Amino acid sequence: MKAGIIGATGYTGVELVKIILKHEKLALSVITSESYAGSKFSEIYPALQGMCDMVLEENNLETVSQKADVFFLCLPHKAAMETANILYNKGKIVIDLSADFRINDKGLYEATYGVEHTASELLKKAVYGQAEIFTEQIKKTTLIAGAGCYPTSIITPLYPLLENNIIDDNQFIIADSKSGVSGAGRKPTLTNIFCEANEDLKPYGIFSHRHNAEIDHILSRAKNNTHVIFTPHLLPVNRGILSTIYIKTHKDKNEIEKAIKSKYSGRFFVRMRDDIPAIRYVAHTNFIDIAVFKKDDTAIIVTAIDNLLKGASAQAVQCYNIQQNIDEKTGLI
Amino acid sequence: MKAGIIGATGYTGVELVKIILKHEKLALSVITSESYAGSKFSEIYPALQGMCDMVLEENNLETVSQKADVFFLCLPHKAAMETANILYNKGKIVIDLSADFRINDKGLYEATYGVEHTASELLKKAVYGQAEIFTEQIKKTTLIAGAGCYPTSIITPLYPLLENNIIDDNQFIIADSKSGVSGAGRKPTLTNIFCEANEDLKPYGIFSHRHNAEIDHILSRAKNNTHVIFTPHLLPVNRGILSTIYIKTHKDKNEIEKAIKSKYSGRFFVRMRDDIPAIRYVAHTNFIDIAVFKKDDTAIIVTAIDNLLKGASAQAVQCYNIQQNIDEKTGLI
Amino acid sequence: MKAGIIGATGYTGVELVKIILKHEKLALSVITSESYAGSKFSEIYPALQGMCDMVLEENNLETVSQKADVFFLCLPHKAAMETANILYNKGKIVIDLSADFRINDKGLYEATYGVEHTASELLKKAVYGQAEIFTEQIKKTTLIAGAGCYPTSIITPLYPLLENNIIDDNQFIIADSKSGVSGAGRKPTLTNIFCEANEDLKPYGIFSHRHNAEIDHILSRAKNNTHVIFTPHLLPVNRGILSTIYIKTHKDKNEIEKAIKSKYSGRFFVRMRDDIPAIRYVAHTNFIDIAVFKKDDTAIIVTAIDNLLKGASAQAVQCYNIQQNIDEKTGLI
Amino acid sequence: MKAGIIGATGYTGVELVKIILKHEKLALSVITSESYAGSKFSEIYPALQGMCDMVLEENNLETVSQKADVFFLCLPHKAAMETANILYNKGKIVIDLSADFRINDKGLYEATYGVEHTASELLKKAVYGQAEIFTEQIKKTTLIAGAGCYPTSIITPLYPLLENNIIDDNQFIIADSKSGVSGAGRKPTLTNIFCEANEDLKPYGIFSHRHNAEIDHILSRAKNNTHVIFTPHLLPVNRGILSTIYIKTHKDKNEIEKAIKSKYSGRFFVRMRDDIPAIRYVAHTNFIDIAVFKKDDTAIIVTAIDNLLKGASAQAVQCYNIQQNIDEKTGLI
Repeated sequence: MKAGIIGATGYTGVELVKIILKHEKLALSVITSESYAGSKFSEIYPALQGMCDMVLEENNLETVSQKADVFFLCLPHKAAMETANILYNKGKIVIDLSADFRINDKGLYEATYGVEHTASELLKKAVYGQAEIFTEQIKKTTLIAGAGCYPTSIITPLYPLLENNIIDDNQFIIADSKSGVSGAGRKPTLTNIFCEANEDLKPYGIFSHRHNAEIDHILSRAKNNTHVIFTPHLLPVNRGILSTIYIKTHKDKNEIEKAIKSKYSGRFFVRMRDDIPAIRYVAHTNFIDIAVFKKDDTAIIVTAIDNLLKGASAQAVQCYNIQQNIDEKTGLI
Repeated sequence: MKAGIIGATGYTGVELVKIILKHEKLALSVITSESYAGSKFSEIYPALQGMCDMVLEENNLETVSQKADVFFLCLPHKAAMETANILYNKGKIVIDLSADFRINDKGLYEATYGVEHTASELLKKAVYGQAEIFTEQIKKTTLIAGAGCYPTSIITPLYPLLENNIIDDNQFIIADSKSGVSGAGRKPTLTNIFCEANEDLKPYGIFSHRHNAEIDHILSRAKNNTHVIFTPHLLPVNRGILSTIYIKTHKDKNEIEKAIKSKYSGRFFVRMRDDIPAIRYVAHTNFIDIAVFKKDDTAIIVTAIDNLLKGASAQAVQCYNIQQNIDEKTGLI
Repeated sequence: MKAGIIGATGYTGVELVKIILKHEKLALSVITSESYAGSKFSEIYPALQGMCDMVLEENNLETVSQKADVFFLCLPHKAAMETANILYNKGKIVIDLSADFRINDKGLYEATYGVEHTASELLKKAVYGQAEIFTEQIKKTTLIAGAGCYPTSIITPLYPLLENNIIDDNQFIIADSKSGVSGAGRKPTLTNIFCEANEDLKPYGIFSHRHNAEIDHILSRAKNNTHVIFTPHLLPVNRGILSTIYIKTHKDKNEIEKAIKSKYSGRFFVRMRDDIPAIRYVAHTNFIDIAVFKKDDTAIIVTAIDNLLKGASAQAVQCYNIQQNIDEKTGLI
Repeated sequence: MKAGIIGATGYTGVELVKIILKHEKLALSVITSESYAGSKFSEIYPALQGMCDMVLEENNLETVSQKADVFFLCLPHKAAMETANILYNKGKIVIDLSADFRINDKGLYEATYGVEHTASELLKKAVYGQAEIFTEQIKKTTLIAGAGCYPTSIITPLYPLLENNIIDDNQFIIADSKSGVSGAGRKPTLTNIFCEANEDLKPYGIFSHRHNAEIDHILSRAKNNTHVIFTPHLLPVNRGILSTIYIKTHKDKNEIEKAIKSKYSGRFFVRMRDDIPAIRYVAHTNFIDIAVFKKDDTAIIVTAIDNLLKGASAQAVQCYNIQQNIDEKTGLI
């Protein structure tokens, strides 16, 4: 099957290129870029010289849409919804890595992102792309809303705990998350230049990060009105997210672990650990590592993912594999 | 006044050397080391060639004790208590940077550190060296127990909140802390080598770090039976601690800030911030930066310190300055 | 074919494990460790949980030798020569990643490494494992001496230049090389701990690094009595080597490039670049990137490799592929 | 004396602010910024809250010039020459940290920087601010051209070697230099964002860096027509330059060292080392560390400086101290 990437020159785009090159069922047939159309991909990412010297095309969907069967969208929100709408209506499989179809409530989306949702009729058709939770729905859709990076690290362990009433009612759920700088994208700003990010750590978006709405929205499917207190931090590493999650529960460690293990039984990329997760263990992989610690009424759940892979491009391909009914590991190990 | 450093070749030792060299009321008169006796200090720390070429002496207290009036102890716990005992009884001012006199309850100390406390008669005389909280007691003692690094970052904001009943009863206090690698000391281990710590983040000592006992012990002076859920993380930077502290409170942001500001009114090294604290803002300084964020019933308090300075050597000198009734900033800016 | 790794728990060992897991013609059948025998490999490298949970065996060659057809030796020098001797004489294919068979002159080896060479009869049989230069010899041997990391980055461009008399006679050849910290191995020392290596750069082994003998020895096959002035530096990154090589030549840029291109025509892993090589472009790959710059009588040749891959484990597998007459890229892209 | 900083918000500006705050003979009286006029300095550099909360003023020289006696210019080249001209003619002491007065040959300046020099009558009055070489001239001028960062690391050791004919005639002088990312300034670009600079090393400006002209121009005062082959590299650390310099000489190590030591006898900030210099030893100081290694006809001279201090702001203040006939260390240790 032929694959296209719309907006291929950001960090999620280059990871998709690398995965598709290794994927035995996908052939990369078209890549686009607004800023770099006409350049070879390897001019933008010199690491790929000899691996991907394809020329980037303009985002002209009339032309581009004919060149592939499945499209991965690596566009900013708002731009993504419009592109998705066109490609979906042309019968393409669309895997959108933006936030535009993650929250399938038009009002909540618009309140969170401050823009009108102009493809809201698709919101009901889009499936949230946490690959291990929404597996059955992913098989039946052609519009996948790739899960957010922070949300993947938080929703994956909490979803089964909420489904199984492991977390005490009306009690705190706190997710203290730390992300590598690639999460901020490739656009140069005073926040992500080397001398400002290196040898530092700081929280940002306290009580106000957009992923909080996504986290609460998806978790509320497991249990109504779930609210997570979520604090992201900017961490001086290239890639990876570690989330330290605090919950109150009267259940013991075994019950907590069992709920997670049962939910993800047989799922290769969810790894329960006995030791403590670390970003280093999951960097450059599609794994999500999870460990549970318990004392008194508090459980601490630690998760780690690669923000660009399980948190974006690799999970997107995993969803594609599931949708196509092929081994979910294809191209990913 | 003449100052000595016992165990001068670790990371807190070299910071003390640098501070004392700039301190107009202190002259560095003796430095010791078990491993490097006979070497010049600048052979161990080549950065100080021309600045401190003193020769390290053996830890022979009979000889050494005659060479200074105030001693800073940079020894492991257990070794420190015995050295402190001798020097204290010789009438010296002793500022111990180990954990040996921080917990002035023999049983709790022994349960936490797993060794007998052989100088327990001094526990009542030692004053805990958080310089802004125990200022009056510091003035009257000659044995100061330098506050721990993580504890400084957590106790400083929470102490006045507990004193003023700002935190709801029977509710969680969670401190998610991240520390630079110098906190692990200078001894090479598989945990602190570059390739294992770089590009990584991981929690450690979950529910079991010894600083948790220190934190709870000191905070319980502000309010009985205070317990903090404390999770340290190893952060790939040389120096700095950032603590993200979650509390439940019905008080508003102003009241929270006011409690902290009143407590530390006029204290130069406590900086309340309107923006978000960052390790970068306090690295290489004795500041503790504090900011408060509030939403619904949750307050998030973010603090940042330099773990080797406000978290160890600089606060130790600040305590000395206070004890001597000189400007607390002497040698520290 | 079944593959074994002797001494699998160092940084070159884990890279070999990862490559062999992806290699369609090799099955990993035995891994050994002196220090960790009895442990699962994933206990030593938690990143590989679910990927390689094999149990490490002792270095008992009687037992171990029966379990595989090809052995990769990741041992210190001296230990390697003895192991290689036994396995070679049992008819195994031996790919030694140590220095023991790189210099096939017993006297020079012993002068350089300060130990007796006790398997010197094998020195004539061993082939130096720079995969693109000694391709034909590699096909005919069962004992490959994996090329050193620094030497690979320096020999690869210079060999064809010397063969073609591109470099002026009796003139300097200077290689200023910078290596990531993984080159120092996984053993904790005061040199490779995070706080001593981070935010630093320093040369080491000036005029005295053992790789200098290897570089000169191999290059002297291209042109007698070649001597390179070689200065390694310790660079605060996990992996990668960049060498900036200065030569004096009256030939123009085209002739220089042509000599290199002709030598490596059709070789996938040698990439001539028009832009400037960078460690980032080759990290996690088996590529060696080369670029040539010329002004007046000086040419600057910049090369970059991943020290653990093209500089060790991946080039070792590339040599195996060549020896087996299969696509040299197998398992490596 | 009152000091002003024109263009205070870049990395050299903030270092000047910190130095002047500690300088007992200088009071910071005015700071300006084109982009941030009206903001407090501590809003731009939150680390300085409580240390420097002065408000930045516009670059209006009529107003600003009345507020100080000595001006440090932290402006881009071209802008600096015009500002310097005005302030100099108003009788101010001007210390320019740009390149505009370093090359006192109008034609060479214009060829190198590609702009017209509109204050060329000042070129003869400006003194090059390598503090230990041009000490006597600095005492007699009121216009100092702060030395470049790379040039300081290269000129300092080579100047006395050329003066004393230590380097063989018509032979190579190669300077392979590595600089921390702060050398690229604070303006965000694709080159200096964290994910592009971290875990990388690459040369840039090969055969074409503007500092090469400055290096050759100044060294040719020691010996006519000196030419250095200079290659800068971008190093993933915040600050520091290490230069590895290769020369051909028949003199022995002692003679080489003696030439440097004699030149800089009694100069505190020039440190000859017996061990190998490292960026870590000089970071956050005004030292230049120098060591000499010799084998056969090649000498390797390694130097290290902090690019923002000895390479810019601290050496600028050192020049001021010299010009004022006060201890050159004032404010700098």
